[in-house]
Amino acid sequence: MARIVMKFGGTSVADMTRIKAVAERVKREVDAGNEVAVVVSAMSGETNKLVAFTREASLLHDAREYDTVVAAGEQVTAGLTALALQAIGVNARSWLGWQIPLRTDGVHSKARILGIDTDDLIKRMKDGQFPVLAGFQGLGPDNRITTLGRGGSDTSAVALAAALHADRCDIFTDVDGVYTSDPRIVTKARKLDKITYEEMLEMASLGAKVLQTRSVELAMNHGVRVQVLSSFVDMPGTMVVDEEEIVEQQVVSGIAYSKDEAKITLVKVADRPGIAAGIFGPLADAAINVDMIVQNVSEDGKSTDLTFTVTKADLDRTVQVLESRKADLDYKAITPDPNVVKISVIGVGMRSHAGVAQTMFKTLAERGINIQVISTSEIKISVLINEEYTELALRALHTAYGLDAA
Amino acid sequence: MARIVMKFGGTSVADMTRIKAVAERVKREVDAGNEVAVVVSAMSGETNKLVAFTREASLLHDAREYDTVVAAGEQVTAGLTALALQAIGVNARSWLGWQIPLRTDGVHSKARILGIDTDDLIKRMKDGQFPVLAGFQGLGPDNRITTLGRGGSDTSAVALAAALHADRCDIFTDVDGVYTSDPRIVTKARKLDKITYEEMLEMASLGAKVLQTRSVELAMNHGVRVQVLSSFVDMPGTMVVDEEEIVEQQVVSGIAYSKDEAKITLVKVADRPGIAAGIFGPLADAAINVDMIVQNVSEDGKSTDLTFTVTKADLDRTVQVLESRKADLDYKAITPDPNVVKISVIGVGMRSHAGVAQTMFKTLAERGINIQVISTSEIKISVLINEEYTELALRALHTAYGLDAA
Repeated sequence: MARIVMKFGGTSVADMTRIKAVAERVKREVDAGNEVAVVVSAMSGETNKLVAFTREASLLHDAREYDTVVAAGEQVTAGLTALALQAIGVNARSWLGWQIPLRTDGVHSKARILGIDTDDLIKRMKDGQFPVLAGFQGLGPDNRITTLGRGGSDTSAVALAAALHADRCDIFTDVDGVYTSDPRIVTKARKLDKITYEEMLEMASLGAKVLQTRSVELAMNHGVRVQVLSSFVDMPGTMVVDEEEIVEQQVVSGIAYSKDEAKITLVKVADRPGIAAGIFGPLADAAINVDMIVQNVSEDGKSTDLTFTVTKADLDRTVQVLESRKADLDYKAITPDPNVVKISVIGVGMRSHAGVAQTMFKTLAERGINIQVISTSEIKISVLINEEYTELALRALHTAYGLDAA
Repeated sequence: MARIVMKFGGTSVADMTRIKAVAERVKREVDAGNEVAVVVSAMSGETNKLVAFTREASLLHDAREYDTVVAAGEQVTAGLTALALQAIGVNARSWLGWQIPLRTDGVHSKARILGIDTDDLIKRMKDGQFPVLAGFQGLGPDNRITTLGRGGSDTSAVALAAALHADRCDIFTDVDGVYTSDPRIVTKARKLDKITYEEMLEMASLGAKVLQTRSVELAMNHGVRVQVLSSFVDMPGTMVVDEEEIVEQQVVSGIAYSKDEAKITLVKVADRPGIAAGIFGPLADAAINVDMIVQNVSEDGKSTDLTFTVTKADLDRTVQVLESRKADLDYKAITPDPNVVKISVIGVGMRSHAGVAQTMFKTLAERGINIQVISTSEIKISVLINEEYTELALRALHTAYGLDAA
């Protein structure tokens, strides 16, 4: 017997046919003698519809009313899923955020979970009544509905699993797991049986939209074993677990990419103390996130080239901010370039293995691919290259690191 | 300055354009210095959609889950209406049933209101913040969402008006008031400026779908002055008030009709004590509502004809129940007749005026219309006639009682 949290995303509860399939899937875990708690998202498309209504209602954004409106989506699926379970003989009941209560802070529309009262839930599960929680929502200190931000149902599920000390948190989605690379590009990509929290975090923040970053952080902090699997196909997915659970660690677990990058070079910036603060301070004030930064060694001791990346959406605004500061910053030119891609090699094993970066540089050089910027973290090496080479680079690196399927 | 509850039905909040129009209407009352509380229904069609989902989810009907699902409709419009009010400068906030709380009994899907906690609402209104309540919903003793049954938002509004000791409860709908008769048939029908609770109750139970019967009872019991008016046209509607408020009382206020009637005659039933109980007991057991009943005087002292009406939907089932009891009841034949209509003349003034019934009988006789069954109450005379004569009878009676518009 295990205690399992099962979370179903929007495409998994898109209509009544899908909701009935979800009920059957839950019933199998119940019939196997497990204590099961279910977390559901809104029907796919429903949240977007409700968000659009709130925008139409008011340009002034009262996040408390926004939360009241959009939380209705999960309320509906929670009730319907409980009904569908009852229809096949499973004693289930819906729980809304305020009923549990799942308490959050008062930051409406992107609230953080403070605590979940699970005594009653556990007692009822032991008595054979299985809870179906409306994901994404909680109760704020003002006794009003809060929501957790986009993808918040993943966070609800992981937080519930932590509070329930669940053996596993199954996140059902429309993909069947985490892959070594994007299977649409790298046909030899393999589904991973296991991946560490740290690797999953890097992958999530690089745009592998399998799990919300916050939910992975939460799982890591509380040691919740998360499984990503498909609600459409019946097979095991990918377990996201602690490093210690992975006996034979690959040096590299996956190759990710992000096309959402743009490069900016400031040519011949004055090379004096405080210049970096003079550049990145105004960008931070404008809420522009800067990712990779490279400053060349000054040749003449007076000026240098400084290159960094922002999201494509922020590129024009970044140029505007820098042009407005030209007098202060004393640079010669700005060279914006949106035609870049960030390729990342990820693996906790690289901590203990030398030569991982070298393999990357050599592989790309052999294909004639020029590396524009490099950045590294403990478990990741990222390079910026010309966008044209995305597919070539991904496939070459996938092979070079021995990740290709047999 | 007055304290006003304004309730907007489904067609009045059907889309964002309508909701913005509702906000403008509310703003006018606020700008006039009034304390305003708003009650909203779900967008028209939304409740039906959610009800259909629950039916699809489960044939077993768990009314607690049903309530959780369908209450989401009013939750959405309450939030959107608050946003639309904020957008035009009115300080508004939404209130869900559980937040107020509006307490009900535990009879899910048709709960009765036990009490409304208004201290906070009144304090906020005095401070200039105007509440927008999700109608139709409350909080049951089990800390779960309850709903008040179809048309329950009218009941929410009247109950709120009673609890707030409001000066008026305005029910905005898609008709502009209560008419002396159905204007689609009687072109000379007039909109009534005022009508008594008792008359409105008779009209409502006769199918004039302007107000839900329960809300009229509640208004009568608590002396809430209700106004029925259009959210589409800007003009006064009909006030539903206590008899004492109406100075010059018409003898007859309106002519109503119901096509939802079917007549059944049991021919030559044994005329012995207990026979009525033998007929109507089994029908009550089958949850069939019997309306008008006429038993002729027995001619031979042994048998009699007994005629009564049920709704058209119950006709076949009624015949089945009676046929299954033929041995007991000892009748000669059953004659069902769905082609009938019930025409009712309604007016509190008829208490003090003789000859009201006589005018009805004479008017119908002059048009060659045969009266099949008669029933009377203190303020109503109803007759059953052949359905073919519906329009002719309505128009003739409307003229005979002096109700025609000039």
